[in-house]
Amino acid sequence: MKTYTEYLTFSTKKKVEFINITERISSVVKKSGIKDGICLINAMHITASVFVNDEEPGLKNDFKAWLAKLVPGPLETYHHNLSGEDNAQAHLMRTIMGREVLVAITAGSLDLGPWEQIFYGEFDGCRPKRVLIKVCG
Amino acid sequence: MKTYTEYLTFSTKKKVEFINITERISSVVKKSGIKDGICLINAMHITASVFVNDEEPGLKNDFKAWLAKLVPGPLETYHHNLSGEDNAQAHLMRTIMGREVLVAITAGSLDLGPWEQIFYGEFDGCRPKRVLIKVCG
Amino acid sequence: MKTYTEYLTFSTKKKVEFINITERISSVVKKSGIKDGICLINAMHITASVFVNDEEPGLKNDFKAWLAKLVPGPLETYHHNLSGEDNAQAHLMRTIMGREVLVAITAGSLDLGPWEQIFYGEFDGCRPKRVLIKVCG
Repeated sequence: MKTYTEYLTFSTKKKVEFINITERISSVVKKSGIKDGICLINAMHITASVFVNDEEPGLKNDFKAWLAKLVPGPLETYHHNLSGEDNAQAHLMRTIMGREVLVAITAGSLDLGPWEQIFYGEFDGCRPKRVLIKVCG
Repeated sequence: MKTYTEYLTFSTKKKVEFINITERISSVVKKSGIKDGICLINAMHITASVFVNDEEPGLKNDFKAWLAKLVPGPLETYHHNLSGEDNAQAHLMRTIMGREVLVAITAGSLDLGPWEQIFYGEFDGCRPKRVLIKVCG
Repeated sequence: MKTYTEYLTFSTKKKVEFINITERISSVVKKSGIKDGICLINAMHITASVFVNDEEPGLKNDFKAWLAKLVPGPLETYHHNLSGEDNAQAHLMRTIMGREVLVAITAGSLDLGPWEQIFYGEFDGCRPKRVLIKVCG
């Protein structure tokens, strides 16, 4: 099996932020030279996510509001935060959104559906965090 | 790496519907001729899901009732629906259920546990939508 | 593509329990001899999970308390339990936590971020259940 590996680093301006990384992943696949196979994209941090959804600003707001309801504050609700941390909610939110995505590669490109876009989801941002891309073919 | 790709199309009768696709995926794996490897199965639409669970009618009802509670109406609650859409809840429900499944292939067959069945989960149905299958070995 | 397959069996002492399996997965990867590729790790039972998060006891308690809130009792709430079963909640909890994880292998090791640890998540324990590991390279 042929493989190609690359790492991207993100440092968001907000604590919770979604970044569309479809074009960047697409470039990595082109660079790999792999024409048919699969592409793993995963957050390397446990308070961040890689997921597939829609590039629509209203929906991004819906995701944020919904996650805030599913993982409510205050901070002191969470055992993890008693150890000096303040990001327990980020761990749980990323669990809902998922760690990784596996996208097929067909005819040299990401084989995505009409509205599928790949996002980096940050839930405890404002510091550099990495995403791993492994192209296999 | 050897690969084999196929697409299935589903057009459900109900807005929310779960279809057991294990047999169909199994046929695609046989057709691929791949005896050992992995099989990616993913929804190509962002209001649909591919997931693994149990073929038990009561449980399917539990999933539907539970998702309706985790992603409650009314429609106007969601920013996405202010743009003329009405399917924000379907985007969030599919996020809970997951976009994709990766199943091992061993000795020429899907290497599933005793109760593992593969489902297509539709949350905004009544129109044709596709599932991608990529067999790698 | 070269592959290597192994199965681990877990029989937890508690109904809900998280077991850190990073070291065991790492050993399987070493044994495979595969230096670059991917490693699929999935629960073979539909009331169990494989997921990546943090080795921090407070956070593990947070996950358990949070799942109990997202999937509340009593047992009779769930159709699945009317068929003589009592584990509907375990099916839903595992859906939140995920069935599987795909981890990259680079330079002969699991290519994990600084805090990424792999866990087996049991939601209906006290009996032997299996995890599948498929290393591909």
